[in-house]
Amino acid sequence: MPAYMPRYALKIEYDGGHFAGWQKQDGPLTVQGAMHEALGRLEAGVPVISAAGRTDAGVHALGQVAHCDMEKDWTPFRLAQALNYHLKPLPVAIVDAASVPDDFHARFSAKERRYHYRIVCRRAPLTIDGGFAWRVPRRLDAGAMHSAAQYLVGRHDFTTFRASECQARSPVRTVDAVDVAASGSDVSISVRARSFLHNQVRSFVGTLERIGAGAWPPERVLDALMARDRAACGPLAPPDGLYLAGVRYEPDPFRDERAQGGQGNLP
Amino acid sequence: MPAYMPRYALKIEYDGGHFAGWQKQDGPLTVQGAMHEALGRLEAGVPVISAAGRTDAGVHALGQVAHCDMEKDWTPFRLAQALNYHLKPLPVAIVDAASVPDDFHARFSAKERRYHYRIVCRRAPLTIDGGFAWRVPRRLDAGAMHSAAQYLVGRHDFTTFRASECQARSPVRTVDAVDVAASGSDVSISVRARSFLHNQVRSFVGTLERIGAGAWPPERVLDALMARDRAACGPLAPPDGLYLAGVRYEPDPFRDERAQGGQGNLP
Repeated sequence: MPAYMPRYALKIEYDGGHFAGWQKQDGPLTVQGAMHEALGRLEAGVPVISAAGRTDAGVHALGQVAHCDMEKDWTPFRLAQALNYHLKPLPVAIVDAASVPDDFHARFSAKERRYHYRIVCRRAPLTIDGGFAWRVPRRLDAGAMHSAAQYLVGRHDFTTFRASECQARSPVRTVDAVDVAASGSDVSISVRARSFLHNQVRSFVGTLERIGAGAWPPERVLDALMARDRAACGPLAPPDGLYLAGVRYEPDPFRDERAQGGQGNLP
Repeated sequence: MPAYMPRYALKIEYDGGHFAGWQKQDGPLTVQGAMHEALGRLEAGVPVISAAGRTDAGVHALGQVAHCDMEKDWTPFRLAQALNYHLKPLPVAIVDAASVPDDFHARFSAKERRYHYRIVCRRAPLTIDGGFAWRVPRRLDAGAMHSAAQYLVGRHDFTTFRASECQARSPVRTVDAVDVAASGSDVSISVRARSFLHNQVRSFVGTLERIGAGAWPPERVLDALMARDRAACGPLAPPDGLYLAGVRYEPDPFRDERAQGGQGNLP
């Protein structure tokens, strides 16, 4: 065992519908479990890796970030290629990789997480987008949703908007932005915060949908927030439409890697 | 059997990866076969329906159009809902329906068909987009592709760009537009024409990819066209990235339906 183990940050994309969430479990297929197995094909005894966001079953990722410690000095590009080879044919892929300092931690170094949620308003069942959006069989007023969403921005006690099984010690979080935009029959919701409570985004979306449908007045979001009571939350939106879009670090390990001219290869 | 059978136009969306193409076959699951079975649940002996584009296995549709003759007078909205009920859980759905005159024919009345092709330039395998785009592990010069594509616009003998098994009597077609645009790692190609030869769009895309990769000079598209020889074509692009985006009729049966105030419902 060498004294020095090089650390790597990995940017990971996956179709959450194929996995029982990120977190490794005995039995069900998870993203962390698949990653751990692929790493084990490269080197024996690789420690279990940490990720920025422990996504639930069915939740997708475009830019999940995890880190791992290896014994050998891999070029990030070769590490990504080798992992992708061993991850096949599962719908999970390393889309970028970078060497990072020993004090980089995918979870604790993250400055901000970005989630996107996609709603498709139509009556017909989804075909191409099946499992990748929440189909809502009614028109939604995205403007009203966006206005109401602004009550959620800032530092608040989000007890109303967290799962009863949420294990965070404090229900207080700072939400940097909640933006709702419509495009054709799509309504997309983007949320940014340093960290999130369990089910926080899906709880936001389920509540905002009620506003968009006209079933609840926009002020009910403020009432729900103030209530600090899970019962005041709208119905939980399904995982299908949720994407962990990206994680911000300072400095950005992936940008640095390119600035060094280390690869110039396609991700 | 009533003398008058009302005719309906159906706008159909499907994930082509689940079907052995549009055209009904003995054995393999096809979109036409699934549609015919669903129609048969509504009325006995419904004639086989015709579509604007006979898509190949793996090719998707966002706006395929077919027509059918029914015995009962269905409201288009109820017909779409009943068909969607019986099509479940297959990834095919009726996204719009309209009453049309007896002389409307999904195939022969079409004024223009639009196809989109989606390429994703990256090394990592596709996860969320798996089966829904062509992954090309190199950067493509979309500007060069767009310039070269202009050689294909107009009335030409497209022998080079049709499948050897193409059954059209004439290889002459008029292509109205070929547009190539880049967005991030995506390159999208849109092609419009009144009608197409078998594999014409995939032949265009496979040839334009060679230009974008810098493997062929743009003028080679003109040489290939002039050669009138299948051997001069680039490699056939896979079906995964191809979408029948829409079909144009005059008047648009679906717009009319809404103008009549017939539903006002969500599609």
